[in-house]
Amino acid sequence: MAKLATLLPLLLFLLTASLVFSRNTDREQYGEGGEHPAESEQSSNNPFFFDEKSFRTPLKTREGNLRILDRFTQRSHLLRGIEKYRLAVLEANPNAALMPTHYDTDEILFVVAGRATITLMRKENKESYNLRKGDILRVEAGTTHYIINRHNKEQLLIAKLLETMSVPGQVQPFFGIGGRNPESYYTSFSKNILEAAFNTEDEKVRKVFQENQEGAFVSVPQEKIRQIAQQASSSSEEGRTHGGRRRGPFNLFEKHPTYSNQHGQIYEVDSSDYPALQAQDISVAYAIIRGGSMLAPYYNSKAFKVALVVDGKGHWELVSPYGSARSGEGRESQEESVSYQRLSAELSDGNGLVVPPGHPSAIVAEGGQDLRVLCFGINAEENQEHRLAGRDNIYNKMNKAEREIFFKAPETEVREVLNAQRDAGIVEGPKGSQESESEGRGRAFQSILGFAGF
Amino acid sequence: MAKLATLLPLLLFLLTASLVFSRNTDREQYGEGGEHPAESEQSSNNPFFFDEKSFRTPLKTREGNLRILDRFTQRSHLLRGIEKYRLAVLEANPNAALMPTHYDTDEILFVVAGRATITLMRKENKESYNLRKGDILRVEAGTTHYIINRHNKEQLLIAKLLETMSVPGQVQPFFGIGGRNPESYYTSFSKNILEAAFNTEDEKVRKVFQENQEGAFVSVPQEKIRQIAQQASSSSEEGRTHGGRRRGPFNLFEKHPTYSNQHGQIYEVDSSDYPALQAQDISVAYAIIRGGSMLAPYYNSKAFKVALVVDGKGHWELVSPYGSARSGEGRESQEESVSYQRLSAELSDGNGLVVPPGHPSAIVAEGGQDLRVLCFGINAEENQEHRLAGRDNIYNKMNKAEREIFFKAPETEVREVLNAQRDAGIVEGPKGSQESESEGRGRAFQSILGFAGF
Amino acid sequence: MAKLATLLPLLLFLLTASLVFSRNTDREQYGEGGEHPAESEQSSNNPFFFDEKSFRTPLKTREGNLRILDRFTQRSHLLRGIEKYRLAVLEANPNAALMPTHYDTDEILFVVAGRATITLMRKENKESYNLRKGDILRVEAGTTHYIINRHNKEQLLIAKLLETMSVPGQVQPFFGIGGRNPESYYTSFSKNILEAAFNTEDEKVRKVFQENQEGAFVSVPQEKIRQIAQQASSSSEEGRTHGGRRRGPFNLFEKHPTYSNQHGQIYEVDSSDYPALQAQDISVAYAIIRGGSMLAPYYNSKAFKVALVVDGKGHWELVSPYGSARSGEGRESQEESVSYQRLSAELSDGNGLVVPPGHPSAIVAEGGQDLRVLCFGINAEENQEHRLAGRDNIYNKMNKAEREIFFKAPETEVREVLNAQRDAGIVEGPKGSQESESEGRGRAFQSILGFAGF
Repeated sequence: MAKLATLLPLLLFLLTASLVFSRNTDREQYGEGGEHPAESEQSSNNPFFFDEKSFRTPLKTREGNLRILDRFTQRSHLLRGIEKYRLAVLEANPNAALMPTHYDTDEILFVVAGRATITLMRKENKESYNLRKGDILRVEAGTTHYIINRHNKEQLLIAKLLETMSVPGQVQPFFGIGGRNPESYYTSFSKNILEAAFNTEDEKVRKVFQENQEGAFVSVPQEKIRQIAQQASSSSEEGRTHGGRRRGPFNLFEKHPTYSNQHGQIYEVDSSDYPALQAQDISVAYAIIRGGSMLAPYYNSKAFKVALVVDGKGHWELVSPYGSARSGEGRESQEESVSYQRLSAELSDGNGLVVPPGHPSAIVAEGGQDLRVLCFGINAEENQEHRLAGRDNIYNKMNKAEREIFFKAPETEVREVLNAQRDAGIVEGPKGSQESESEGRGRAFQSILGFAGF
Repeated sequence: MAKLATLLPLLLFLLTASLVFSRNTDREQYGEGGEHPAESEQSSNNPFFFDEKSFRTPLKTREGNLRILDRFTQRSHLLRGIEKYRLAVLEANPNAALMPTHYDTDEILFVVAGRATITLMRKENKESYNLRKGDILRVEAGTTHYIINRHNKEQLLIAKLLETMSVPGQVQPFFGIGGRNPESYYTSFSKNILEAAFNTEDEKVRKVFQENQEGAFVSVPQEKIRQIAQQASSSSEEGRTHGGRRRGPFNLFEKHPTYSNQHGQIYEVDSSDYPALQAQDISVAYAIIRGGSMLAPYYNSKAFKVALVVDGKGHWELVSPYGSARSGEGRESQEESVSYQRLSAELSDGNGLVVPPGHPSAIVAEGGQDLRVLCFGINAEENQEHRLAGRDNIYNKMNKAEREIFFKAPETEVREVLNAQRDAGIVEGPKGSQESESEGRGRAFQSILGFAGF
Repeated sequence: MAKLATLLPLLLFLLTASLVFSRNTDREQYGEGGEHPAESEQSSNNPFFFDEKSFRTPLKTREGNLRILDRFTQRSHLLRGIEKYRLAVLEANPNAALMPTHYDTDEILFVVAGRATITLMRKENKESYNLRKGDILRVEAGTTHYIINRHNKEQLLIAKLLETMSVPGQVQPFFGIGGRNPESYYTSFSKNILEAAFNTEDEKVRKVFQENQEGAFVSVPQEKIRQIAQQASSSSEEGRTHGGRRRGPFNLFEKHPTYSNQHGQIYEVDSSDYPALQAQDISVAYAIIRGGSMLAPYYNSKAFKVALVVDGKGHWELVSPYGSARSGEGRESQEESVSYQRLSAELSDGNGLVVPPGHPSAIVAEGGQDLRVLCFGINAEENQEHRLAGRDNIYNKMNKAEREIFFKAPETEVREVLNAQRDAGIVEGPKGSQESESEGRGRAFQSILGFAGF
């Protein structure tokens, strides 16, 4: 038995190891085999909320940085529907520029704050645009471009929705002019090829393309910025057209807001406003919720909304069906049941959210400060936002006969509840402070695995 | 050695466990990581056939039920091409209604039997349609709608093809008015948000939305049904149009059948008949095969057909290529070979079938009773059905020179065989009873793993 | 302790087994669960290059063969973006024909060498075309067709890009007339069904469809070839149109080359030339690089290029970003970095290449012989080729102000380097022999796992 005892630790290790491998397999199954399965454990219980730890910073110098949200499928298999998209945020200091680069992704840019000049080196020509807050611009995959913060005091902040093509969810940056980090892609070609390509000695070529030791962001003299910005057009001008299609930027705030009242505004731009959004079936929306007001419960019929909290603080709730697949525990027998849970998050600047189609959601702005949220809509065409409270509540479409069939409460009570809120879209928020999650009626999120619908 | 003996069971357990984990991985690989990998073992040897055990019943009360076929990729990786689709069947008692709900999927409905009134609460308006047998209606994702069986004696039976968006193959139902099962999605919002949204005390809101204890199906007084049905339009009327597009139902039996003879009829509707089908690239077909007759061997060029046996009994055969990838066993050396196997199934009401593109298939109706099969076609555009026997047999397109090149039998024998069957589409079935599977010449299905093509 | 020693091998085996299972899981994760995970180890370090061992030969007789490249995702998850495509090469002896067959894939054919007659048995009619070198033809999925080498001395060589539909990346061939290998799909139907379908005794049907013992390729008498070819049309004629759409072949060499100089030519055909390419969003290009010349460094903005070396020898370099995800080792701390590696390959007839979008690439023809490369472009619409050297170099679009911001070398040196090469597209190649890979500046490919972008 002494010998058995000697062996036991080894045996237990083996057993444990086997179980661990099995669990890994499960996790990968739900996480869709991301590169960093272990990291998925860092994610919170709300698979649709992303705090600052969910962003990586592939480009960073003193002059600026590019942050990018983790691959959605690295978080949860529930996000498979948007696996090819990524959300990124570019920040540049006054008078700093991001070096010329191309990505293997299509991009929709939105200027969150500041003033930029962007230059796109398209095959047939070069185009420069002066961008300001609210400008939306599509940059097609493979277009070498550079971005300058043309303001000499304010930070530039640009949000991007990237649509990947090569490997779903994977973004690859290509810098031609580089140094230590980023490198120049030229310097990976062999000596002979570089010399023949440029008809020049290898050393000279490398010197030209590999001398930048400042990194991905460089500081630009103001006089050069003026020179470049002078030749650029802007969204307030006609916007350059190419083959009848407007290629320049479109400013979101030029549109009348979809909702506007004392509680805030919602602005929405889709391909009927800015045709460049059509190729990717994207929309862009921007909600300004006054402090203490609330984006009333609603759902999107078809679109995923990938949102970025731009400014302010707030509270977000999302209602998600679950348990249908595995009710069992704590309920009678094998009967399936349709029930929902509340997923909530406290919001602040820089947080990311995903609102999947069909899921009811509401956002409350914390008192004292406006909450600003930028939303990219994926599968935007034919999407409709259905309001679940307020004047344009979908249940207000029912007539008396219908209400009496489906509502079991007396008609007078039903009408009272449906009609008490006279505002629409954005309404007055909760009066007191938000109850803590544990007080809520919604059950705690028990397990992502049980979140299965049918 | 006694000690070794003591340890052996443990060691064997570990070894077995490791192998099991390895096998799990394999199975998941082929089952594409469905939620219930273990269940895939319940599936029959024919990965394209689905009996009643393949359906789940997420909604069920005394007044009705909704049954839904398992996710296709839960059955086999061979069905990956249709992983985002689900087949469902809704059944409601006379005068019963399915509560207002929205799904995160687009739906194509087909009324198999009975009479319904469906009301769609679209963003801009509410539309009601009286549906009858043969009506096809598209319900866009996220449209809150309810369905009433408006007949006071007959059952209502509706088949649905669901196209999922959020998570491929996963369907999520959202009920606003509920109780214990289904719950109301409203009640998952926190107290403060509900109160602010409705400008009403939380308790009143919950009472209104959460008083339904009858479940997903409720009984409706006949007078209310009359009231609602009176305001509804139907497929025999013009059909409401919205922006030039017909949004109301289209009746399949209004069309002339594609094939019609003493052996049966085939009706087919595509987007040229009913433009609402275009957005999803779906077609709907309905075959009535007289007892003892046969849908002659044919294949679809591009479409997957997802079929539901609506009425009757029959025998189905599907020819599938396999073994090309791993011939090895029982054959000479490493040479690859192209061979086929027969997959067959005995059909009865409620069975599901999938006919993949390119695969030859035939269906025989059992004597004495018509066999009725509903078929949803996926990738419908440009699809062609190629007949492999009968007057419009593709081999009848060859001329004498061609026949003499490819057929090794004498030309007279070839012509005799190709011309003996004068009917087309549906023909007289086999005279005797069907041979049992084991008598057939087709080899038994050896392993799904070997079914690989190249 | 003697007993422990007895057990140790077993324990070690178990431990090893567990680890192996774990590693398998990882590999499958990156290989996306192909059928033959073990085979992925055979692949070279360059996941974008395919030598002869990467091809399988599912059809082969003395008269001809069909070779097909492995599924792309069997090689690497980096190829997931093109997982539904396959590259194949058909070779037939003089006067040999490939038996009538249909595939469950759309096909784009390109005649690499020789003269063929192809007959398509479409639903409504039969069409025959005489094909010659450079002809491109789309064959829709499910179209039964046969191909004859109508030359009595030369080999016929046809390259195909297959787009799969049923199971991504899986191709299934269906032969109606067969024997031992290929079998006829008819013979898998049961006796009773065959007899009823053909209204003929089972034995006669089987004799007609199953008498071919020659295999997939048969020899055709010259007089029959003449007979069939006489009735066929060709790309030099008007080309048959159906509903306004040209369905016949289009000859690539009828177009003016996009680039043409003393170093070679590039021909490109897209859907604006040949509308049949539009449905699949494919383009076809053909580069003739003179011995000693070079396709200068360039990248595709959106398209994957799937290429086949048709003739000659050469050297290929592809620049790929990597290491961004896991820089760590050998670098300071946790900082991420953007760097690139060179993937190279020595090319000869029959090799396959994939150039992913965004990736810089160059090809050098070995002295003494032209190098000919056929390229299928996937995601062809809106694709642009951006040149990284030569007269139309994208960096030549920058003006002085821009160059002075981004290039750190003196303006005169920059201009000297950018302007020294006066040719465009194809330029004079390296003078000496190619340096060996180990001499190159690009780092060796360390690990596919590290190749992750961000």
